[in-house]
This record gives sequence, C-alpha cells and structure tokens, in this order.
Amino acid sequence: MEVQEQASALLSASTIAATKVEYYQIPLAEVLTDARHGDHTHFELLVFRVRCNDGLEGVGYTYTGGRGGRAIYSLLQDDIQPLLEGKDANEIGAAWEEIQSHLHYVGRGGLLSFALSAVDIALWDLRCKRLGIPLWKVAGGADNTTKCYAGGIDLNFSEAKLLDNISSYLARGFNAVKIKVGKDEYREDVARVEAVRKLIGDDAIFMVDANYSMTVEQAVRFGRAIDHCDITWFEEPTIPDDYLGYGRIAEAINIPLAMGENLHTIHEFTYAIAQSKLGFLQPDASNIGGITGWLKVAELAYAHNLPVCSHGMHELHVSLMASQPHAGYLEVHSFPIDEYTTRPIVLQDGRAVASNEPGTGVVFDDALLRPHLVKYT
Amino acid sequence: MEVQEQASALLSASTIAATKVEYYQIPLAEVLTDARHGDHTHFELLVFRVRCNDGLEGVGYTYTGGRGGRAIYSLLQDDIQPLLEGKDANEIGAAWEEIQSHLHYVGRGGLLSFALSAVDIALWDLRCKRLGIPLWKVAGGADNTTKCYAGGIDLNFSEAKLLDNISSYLARGFNAVKIKVGKDEYREDVARVEAVRKLIGDDAIFMVDANYSMTVEQAVRFGRAIDHCDITWFEEPTIPDDYLGYGRIAEAINIPLAMGENLHTIHEFTYAIAQSKLGFLQPDASNIGGITGWLKVAELAYAHNLPVCSHGMHELHVSLMASQPHAGYLEVHSFPIDEYTTRPIVLQDGRAVASNEPGTGVVFDDALLRPHLVKYT
Repeated sequence: MEVQEQASALLSASTIAATKVEYYQIPLAEVLTDARHGDHTHFELLVFRVRCNDGLEGVGYTYTGGRGGRAIYSLLQDDIQPLLEGKDANEIGAAWEEIQSHLHYVGRGGLLSFALSAVDIALWDLRCKRLGIPLWKVAGGADNTTKCYAGGIDLNFSEAKLLDNISSYLARGFNAVKIKVGKDEYREDVARVEAVRKLIGDDAIFMVDANYSMTVEQAVRFGRAIDHCDITWFEEPTIPDDYLGYGRIAEAINIPLAMGENLHTIHEFTYAIAQSKLGFLQPDASNIGGITGWLKVAELAYAHNLPVCSHGMHELHVSLMASQPHAGYLEVHSFPIDEYTTRPIVLQDGRAVASNEPGTGVVFDDALLRPHLVKYT
Repeated sequence: MEVQEQASALLSASTIAATKVEYYQIPLAEVLTDARHGDHTHFELLVFRVRCNDGLEGVGYTYTGGRGGRAIYSLLQDDIQPLLEGKDANEIGAAWEEIQSHLHYVGRGGLLSFALSAVDIALWDLRCKRLGIPLWKVAGGADNTTKCYAGGIDLNFSEAKLLDNISSYLARGFNAVKIKVGKDEYREDVARVEAVRKLIGDDAIFMVDANYSMTVEQAVRFGRAIDHCDITWFEEPTIPDDYLGYGRIAEAINIPLAMGENLHTIHEFTYAIAQSKLGFLQPDASNIGGITGWLKVAELAYAHNLPVCSHGMHELHVSLMASQPHAGYLEVHSFPIDEYTTRPIVLQDGRAVASNEPGTGVVFDDALLRPHLVKYT
C-alpha cells in the first residue's frame, strides 16, 4: 500500500462487524510447579477475534495458569461483545475506557483486566495491520530486539533435573535464566541457587522468583543468604498487596526486587512504584489491560527511572519490550504459547527478535490450536 | 435441640455433599441512575446453596448492578464447586483461604470476591443453623437492632420526584436518607441537597453519594458548597483507587468521607484506612468475601476507631451491623433483594431489626424468585 492509502485506511472509520471468542485448554508437556499456584498441568488460552466491515481481522488473546478462564470467556461473550459491535475499531482508547467503566462494579483489576486485555490486543493488531507496520515500531520503535531470559517453573524438579533444564536453556542460546524458589526448607533453595550459579558461570544473568510465598522476614533471610550469588532480581518475595512489605525487604537486602504479574490496574503499579522500592517492573499485557495497559506502565516506569520487563506471552511482549528504550529483560515463559503460532520465539546472540510483519506479530496456527478448542461463540 | 446436642452437631464433621448455583435477573420497578454506573434496569442475583451429608442446607448469595453476573456464575460452577465437594462445611476459614489461593492468579479482588462471598455466606448460614442461633449473635452479639438509612439511586429524578421519594422514605419510618450527586452542573447538586435538607428538617440524618464521579478538586468545591447542610458523610467523591486523593479531600472539607463498596480485598481497606482519612467504612459482604471478609473489615475499623457501615444487601447486613458495637448506619439499598425473601426489612423506631431465626436470617421466597431464574446447575 502507498503511504497515503495506508493513512487514509487508518483514519477512515472501520466499524466492528463481528467478534468471536475461542476458549482452549492446552496441556503442558510435563507438570510444572511453583511455590504458590501448585501444579500446572495445562494453561487456558482465550482468543478474541475482531472483524471489521472491510474484512480486516485483528486477533487478541489472554491466558491463565489453568483456572478462571471460563469466567473470562463469559465476560467477553456476555458483557463485552454486545458493547463492541458497531464501534469504530480505531478508537482503542474509547473502547478501553468504556469496557472498564461498563464493568467497573465487578471490576477494577481481577478477571476484568484479563478480558479487557484480549480485546485491546485485537484492536492493536488491527491498528498495526492498517498502518502496515509491525508492533515494535507502532509501540515505540526503540529497537527490534530485546534482552531476554528463560523463566523456569521448576520448583518440583530435583536438583539434577533443575540443572539439566538450565543447561537446555543455555544450549538454546539463552544467557539469562530464572528459577523458582520457596521450598519448605530455605537452605534447600540456597543450595539450588548456588548450584545453578556454579553451572552457568559468573557471566550469565540469574534471577529467582518466590511467587509471593514468603513472609517479609523469610524473604530478608533468604535474600541475605544468596547475596554472594550475584542475583539480578528477587521476584515476588511476598504477597503483591503488601507494597510496604516490599519496601522493607528492599531496604534490608542487596538484591533488587521485581514484581508486576499480579498487579492488574495502573493504580496498583502507581502504589508499587511509590512504596515498594522495586528495581524492575513486570507488567503482563494479558492481565494489565493489553497493549494499552502495558504501555501505560512502561511510561510510568520511564518517568520513575525504572526498567520495564514483562511476564508471560513472550511471543507478543518481544515486540513491546524491543520498542522501549528502557527495557529490562523479556521473560521467555514456560507456557509455550509461541509454539502454537506461526513464529515461535526467535533468538539471536542471546537476544529475542521481534517480528517485522504488520500487526502484533502473533499469528496462531489454527491446525495446532484446533485439537484443544473447548468452546467458542 | 439441647445445648450439648447442638455443640456436638457443630463439631462433628459435616461434609459438603452437593452445591447448587442459581442465576437470576430481577427487574427494577423503575430505571434508577447514578453518576457512574448509568441506568440500572435490573439487578443480577447469584444464589449458592450448600447441602451437607446430613441434609442441612446453607444459602449464600451475591448480586451485581446488572453486569458480570454470568462470569460469577462461571467461577462458582467451573472453578469453585469442584473444590468444595467433600470438604468439611464447618471449616469456613480453610475454604475461604483455599478459594482465594486456588484462583489467585485471576483474582485478588474483582469478580473473585463476589463468587467467594456467595460461598462464604452459605457456610455461615450453615454454621448459624447448626449452632441454632441467629447471625447477629454468632457474628458479635452487640445488639439486635442498628441505625439505618434509606439510600436512593435517584440522580435521574427531577427535583420534585426526588423530594417525593424522600418523603416516601420518611413515611416508611426512616429518619436518615442518602441521595446521589454528580450532575454535570454542580450547582444543581447543591440546590437538590438544600431542597432535601429543607424537606427533612434539621434533625434527620442526611448523606450524599457521588459514585466516584468527581475529580479531587470538584469534590472539594462541592463539599464546601454544601457545608451548611449538615451532611453526615460524603460517599465516594472520587475513584476508589486514589487513596491519597481521598486524603486531600478530607483535609480540605468539613464533611467526613465514606467508601467501601468498591474495595474488594482486606488489603485495599488497609490502605484506605492508612491513607484516605475516612470517617466511615462501608464494606459489602457480597463483594468483600462474605461474612468472613466483612467481619475482618469490621475488626480493622474497630482497631482504628472508625464506625463500620454497609453497602447493599440490607436483609443480611442488618444482622452484621446489629452485631457490632461500633456500627454506623446500615444502608437500606434501592435494590430490593429483601422483597424476594420471607422477611423484608423490619423497622422499629427508625432502627432496623435483625432476624432471630437461626441462620443468616435471609430465606428466599422461591415462588417470588422463580420467574426470574435464568439458569442454574
């Protein structure tokens, strides 16, 4: 398309003619365990498709660790679909505010943020396709690659298996890894951290993640006990609600703190920034209100001199992270959503590379997804 | 039952044999409007029934202003029912924590708190029935009556109709009333407040509620403009997320602030107490995690020398409010859930009277509800 045609296509009203919701349950290759969510045997994937009156389709999605997905499906089908039809797909900001406002009484974060995310991502996909340019350029355009790390969900792995798994990450080209901590006996966590550091050598980047399983005091004790292991961040030491508790931990240990996957409104991030003395912010576009929500947090991070990172859905976040000048590390998550797309994550010299196709760069492979479809509208 | 028998019945394991979810849409007699949720034409009612292996049944419920109810239904049916069957119904604290933990990733407040509430209330109903005593005694036992007020949803009413409506409250025996504010032109709100104060006289209690429609500056301007009207509280002047904004308003005006219906976790109340300089807390047992959640907030209020109030579902809150030594005012809400029970709200000398029957005191009249049943499991 010529530039003028593209601009004109973008600016012309593109009415939402139809929307579609699909609910998938996708089994994991093996059971994955962390300190608070228990065993993961599968993940839930909600795909939301928006078709405009000119036939152009945008695809959005969200996911869960295996629970609550049918309630997201209900929000999309029963409350949000009727709201969207006939609206202008270009007016993403209006749709974002209207969905929040329409469902405010049952909302403010929680499940509503997941449903909103799926819709918002579909509208951004349409926006990028209409512009004819890839997400990493539309969202910020700082770069098309980003630092990244492999995030294991491995608390149930024996130490031998843990080390094998980390070795497989290094073999795939990662030079940064994260493991779960939060064993009943913290000395076991310390031993696992020491063993991983020994395996990966001094130069690799290494993070730990407690999935908010510790008290403030336990987190301080553990953070001090692994001080010699050169840890880049200590993720979710305690419950995400305890903003001030994070601040106490941060003051008592030398390792920077990270959080974000459980903060589902911009206001929650505002409070965390003000009170939790975090070193890294980790919004997840699948539960912070999509790309619109993720970028709002990224701007907050920029304004507060903090690196922005991501949690989950790396096939989408790779473009968002690459787009930002203050990006930290993209998480390449253990839920392999990317393996159900036409472009699984691409690594180059240890960095993840964003798609150059117009759109979000996430195109589901329907033949791979279809066997896992549970229901759809 | 003899005392010993009762105690033994309580202490013996009472296994949950079956649970049932019912979803109702109940039309309102007329369209009711506030400043942020728009027109209310009906409300949604979710009833959750728990039957134990000895045949005893507990009934819980939650409600919405008309949106999101099917997602609550899904959480109850798809995620929570399988979790509960076979559990001991006496172990309410264990169930409360397990549901929160099981759905944490999609939760922390929001819709999860509504679903949890319905379950928790059913378990408390069972507890009270097993003890053979009414909720107001089990929950605290301070009294069996409480101060109360009639809460109008009347922003769309002309001034003449507003005054007629307030007169109808006085005729029913109320000596405390609340109206909605948040008109586009604030002087109109001021005139309505003055007209109501003139109608009800100097001795009646009078509150206003903006449904978080104002900025901090608008709220301060309005609060100062009605300073001469002897207002007991100014409810939800601005968005519930802006704890510090509430604090700024409270410092700038003479009218105490109230909030709570949009705070869905104990932690949110903790922050509001610490930062918002509130005069009244208004937890709603239908969205703060049931009776367990409401009592946690009541204890927080007590510890911080604040009166505890309530929002909505007055047929249940009457017993909770009566039970507390530091109760403020029970809201008698404009959603008439009580008219679908065997005991609509009872007033005596301007106070609301709690039921003396064992259980929560809320017994639905199935013949009245049945025409509004949409679906059930």
